[in-house]
Amino acid sequence: MQASPRTAPDADVGRLLVSCEDGPGIVAAVSAFLHARGANILQSDQDTTDPVGGRFFLRVVFRMPDLMTWLPALDEEFAGEVAEPFGMWFRLRAAAVPTRVAVFVSRYDHCLLDLLWRQRRGDLPADIVQVVSNHPDLQKEVAGFDVPYAHIPVTKDTKAEAERQQAELIAGRVDLVVLARYMQVLSGDFLERIGVPAINIHHSFLPAFAGAGPYEQARTRGVKLVGATAHYVTEVLDEGPIIEQDVARISHRESLVDITRRGADVERTVLARAVSWHCQDRVLLDGQTTIVF
Amino acid sequence: MQASPRTAPDADVGRLLVSCEDGPGIVAAVSAFLHARGANILQSDQDTTDPVGGRFFLRVVFRMPDLMTWLPALDEEFAGEVAEPFGMWFRLRAAAVPTRVAVFVSRYDHCLLDLLWRQRRGDLPADIVQVVSNHPDLQKEVAGFDVPYAHIPVTKDTKAEAERQQAELIAGRVDLVVLARYMQVLSGDFLERIGVPAINIHHSFLPAFAGAGPYEQARTRGVKLVGATAHYVTEVLDEGPIIEQDVARISHRESLVDITRRGADVERTVLARAVSWHCQDRVLLDGQTTIVF
Amino acid sequence: MQASPRTAPDADVGRLLVSCEDGPGIVAAVSAFLHARGANILQSDQDTTDPVGGRFFLRVVFRMPDLMTWLPALDEEFAGEVAEPFGMWFRLRAAAVPTRVAVFVSRYDHCLLDLLWRQRRGDLPADIVQVVSNHPDLQKEVAGFDVPYAHIPVTKDTKAEAERQQAELIAGRVDLVVLARYMQVLSGDFLERIGVPAINIHHSFLPAFAGAGPYEQARTRGVKLVGATAHYVTEVLDEGPIIEQDVARISHRESLVDITRRGADVERTVLARAVSWHCQDRVLLDGQTTIVF
Amino acid sequence: MQASPRTAPDADVGRLLVSCEDGPGIVAAVSAFLHARGANILQSDQDTTDPVGGRFFLRVVFRMPDLMTWLPALDEEFAGEVAEPFGMWFRLRAAAVPTRVAVFVSRYDHCLLDLLWRQRRGDLPADIVQVVSNHPDLQKEVAGFDVPYAHIPVTKDTKAEAERQQAELIAGRVDLVVLARYMQVLSGDFLERIGVPAINIHHSFLPAFAGAGPYEQARTRGVKLVGATAHYVTEVLDEGPIIEQDVARISHRESLVDITRRGADVERTVLARAVSWHCQDRVLLDGQTTIVF
Repeated sequence: MQASPRTAPDADVGRLLVSCEDGPGIVAAVSAFLHARGANILQSDQDTTDPVGGRFFLRVVFRMPDLMTWLPALDEEFAGEVAEPFGMWFRLRAAAVPTRVAVFVSRYDHCLLDLLWRQRRGDLPADIVQVVSNHPDLQKEVAGFDVPYAHIPVTKDTKAEAERQQAELIAGRVDLVVLARYMQVLSGDFLERIGVPAINIHHSFLPAFAGAGPYEQARTRGVKLVGATAHYVTEVLDEGPIIEQDVARISHRESLVDITRRGADVERTVLARAVSWHCQDRVLLDGQTTIVF
Repeated sequence: MQASPRTAPDADVGRLLVSCEDGPGIVAAVSAFLHARGANILQSDQDTTDPVGGRFFLRVVFRMPDLMTWLPALDEEFAGEVAEPFGMWFRLRAAAVPTRVAVFVSRYDHCLLDLLWRQRRGDLPADIVQVVSNHPDLQKEVAGFDVPYAHIPVTKDTKAEAERQQAELIAGRVDLVVLARYMQVLSGDFLERIGVPAINIHHSFLPAFAGAGPYEQARTRGVKLVGATAHYVTEVLDEGPIIEQDVARISHRESLVDITRRGADVERTVLARAVSWHCQDRVLLDGQTTIVF
Repeated sequence: MQASPRTAPDADVGRLLVSCEDGPGIVAAVSAFLHARGANILQSDQDTTDPVGGRFFLRVVFRMPDLMTWLPALDEEFAGEVAEPFGMWFRLRAAAVPTRVAVFVSRYDHCLLDLLWRQRRGDLPADIVQVVSNHPDLQKEVAGFDVPYAHIPVTKDTKAEAERQQAELIAGRVDLVVLARYMQVLSGDFLERIGVPAINIHHSFLPAFAGAGPYEQARTRGVKLVGATAHYVTEVLDEGPIIEQDVARISHRESLVDITRRGADVERTVLARAVSWHCQDRVLLDGQTTIVF
Repeated sequence: MQASPRTAPDADVGRLLVSCEDGPGIVAAVSAFLHARGANILQSDQDTTDPVGGRFFLRVVFRMPDLMTWLPALDEEFAGEVAEPFGMWFRLRAAAVPTRVAVFVSRYDHCLLDLLWRQRRGDLPADIVQVVSNHPDLQKEVAGFDVPYAHIPVTKDTKAEAERQQAELIAGRVDLVVLARYMQVLSGDFLERIGVPAINIHHSFLPAFAGAGPYEQARTRGVKLVGATAHYVTEVLDEGPIIEQDVARISHRESLVDITRRGADVERTVLARAVSWHCQDRVLLDGQTTIVF
């Protein structure tokens, strides 16, 4: 159960994400560790990709008195006592601390505005601290939300320098980058430099209709559903692990404008869900796949 | 409004499909033609792809006393008085006469059985007169529905001869061929010889995951929706005009078996809808696109 | 096909809505009327509720040179030559003239803001000319959209007087009232005085969970889908003809806050669709039912 | 992960369901119990209704060598060592043992046939051992599936005696009763006598349109979605905890026959999902709500 975002979040609630090779005793070890420290498990989800020799994934939400005080020690002890013996990757966080987000955008405003509106309404467990754009168009719109807007133009010649500026601007200030219809491909170099995950919204139902003019492509083929895909960004364009997808039904009655609008509605909803889930530590990576708890 | 398929269909109800270049006066001419013969229009749908110089599509359902008697004359008069002056393609049919269908199938039974069940329940405005398969597996199952089952094996070497046998078997006996998970590609030659449309169900959400193992492909990419696409068959594999699509939501909790099952449920529903709509004369072709009224 | 709202709308496109008792010759008469005046029909939808003695519904989109100039004469001639002989209700409009809308709201902002955003983006074929609220909360938010905000408090004692003020404020200035989570019941008197239709969004899947706390009710019953219903307002609370509905899937994992958020997303999408369709003259009334073309 | 139903199920896989008042140490105790016996946890889902003083729900899938041999002892030890100290309700089962099901039906065949087909295809983790009907209509149909069909007529006068016969027929032979459009209300007496859960499919989107003629009711109100609800049967008609729901979109174009068909498609899909989930021990009761893992 999530505490209401409009009421003060519970400072004693923590979240633990774990992935490792499957084997006996993992849940018992994690449970014993938390139990011994007086933590009460509120929610727990677990999955194994293959009963024999697969990978193991766990998300635990727990309450522990004075969590904020104990978190650094808890992290260190868990690393030594549990994570190391089992060869685990893990992340331990206080649920009350919002994820800091930079939103990259070009000219289409619907995804960016939807995120800003949701944050203002308390509907997004995130803190949008910076908007970055290669165009000045949305500056005024963003100003109304009291979020800094950095206009960093990008041309073929200035791309490397622009990425350097972008990385410098957000370095150490954000936990997540969201590409809200940002029409530039990010270099692998940039992704490495920022060192935090990036989520992209693809304006189509991947892997169908990759490339330019997806709604036009879709209309020409007579498709009856348009969709959107939110995925983690990897160096290979539009090929990262998928977090969420959805579709909307269209008909021959609808013009390209109507279809694009329908698509935009799906895009912003899908992106908002993907960002929310990431910020709630619900998404785990399994190679090219995601586990969404 | 459709008459109930469980009650006797109304023998006086006719359906007219029209497509031509758009221009003034088409609807007026068609309406006047029907009105002058005492026909009352029950339902009418119309679409123009482009206000300037586009194509025009019309579906009219009407009631006319003694339709069955007058149909041949009506067809001839419409051709001369309306279709020719406007350069129209048209089709005029009595709604009470069911479409005769041959179903082609390999080993997967779910789409075939769903069509047979729906026909038996009176839920499909079609008459399945022949099942054709390159495997003997489903013979017994089909026998229970009193539909003839032709087992015509197909190998690389015998394909041309097999297609000749298939075409001969159904020649003049069917108005539609349905590929209900038939795992052989039909040659352009065969399609031409049978001279009736063919509908295929694609076990995936086209154009994504074409080729083998679509659900496995989908699972590996972490997709959150599986889908199915029903389309008219053209010589280019899996590229014909799309009639209907749908999706079902899946999660990491589901195994490949679960996902395949979910996919099969979507496949049979989507195919049944596409076949029904075709048999109700609801589908018109516009190049690679369909108009579904 | 709709012209793009971002390009100038085509001033020669008109829309005609018709409903009357069914009978022969209606379509022929309407078509002949338009054809004789040089109008070209772009889109036409027609429905008959019952082949025998039912009601007839028609929506025609047409292009006619100099429509704006001829519209008053066209209206008068159609009334005399076609509508009267057939006992028709009809509405004839220029598509380029946007519907003028007053939005009534209380404290929840999501539906109102979604409508304002869509209008600003050119996605709503409407002109929001006034916001009316019984609370001052959203004044600042609305100011950013340059739409006047009238704060008219309503108590049990002042309700009649408040409604009088509201009606006076919008009299002659609007073609549609939208209740975007307005938490006051409008009197039949008020509805009559304003003389234009009103659309309401119901925060639930009608007729289920009418009354207070619908999401809480739904959660207690373990429902797996939450929904929203947009309908025309009648004197009987929450019982007017339904224009659009949709649902979103929920699970036991989601708290009441999560479910309410999901519901809010459905509410704003459903309301925006209903308002758009009304403003595009796509919705016809058939007693307690709507025909949505 | 579910093993494929077409391959032999893994005899070493067990499932444990637990519910009790929440408190610290539950997961640790369950994990330690299984770990100590060499069981490896494959999947684990957990939920707490309220962080403070709520109820706790757990589903664990595990593999344990020679499970079938140890199951009785395991059950007894778990009862004594874990369940009793924590005041737990629990159920421990071998996944390879299919749930035995009796299907009750009247005249509508779609839900019954869908279950029989799925079972034959290996898609239902259940063993349908008996069909019971108050009508003889579907006898021949069911015979083709080699399942015994008991025709037990029910009138107002004979109801008590009919229920006695029904209960006697299935006593000790089934783990679940499925009402697949059985048009008789079961008495609380009967439910108590059979001592196993019963699942019903409601031909509508509960709680809307309860009572007779739901699709007709829906059509009259102009609803745009029809749905179905699968729920556990309680003495209060149509009020039991909901397991699954779904909807399909309809339009004014569709007749009552079309809508009923759409509804029937939703009904059989929703019922099949609910029965599958129950048989996979995915459904836990929380008062009037269900937790579906």
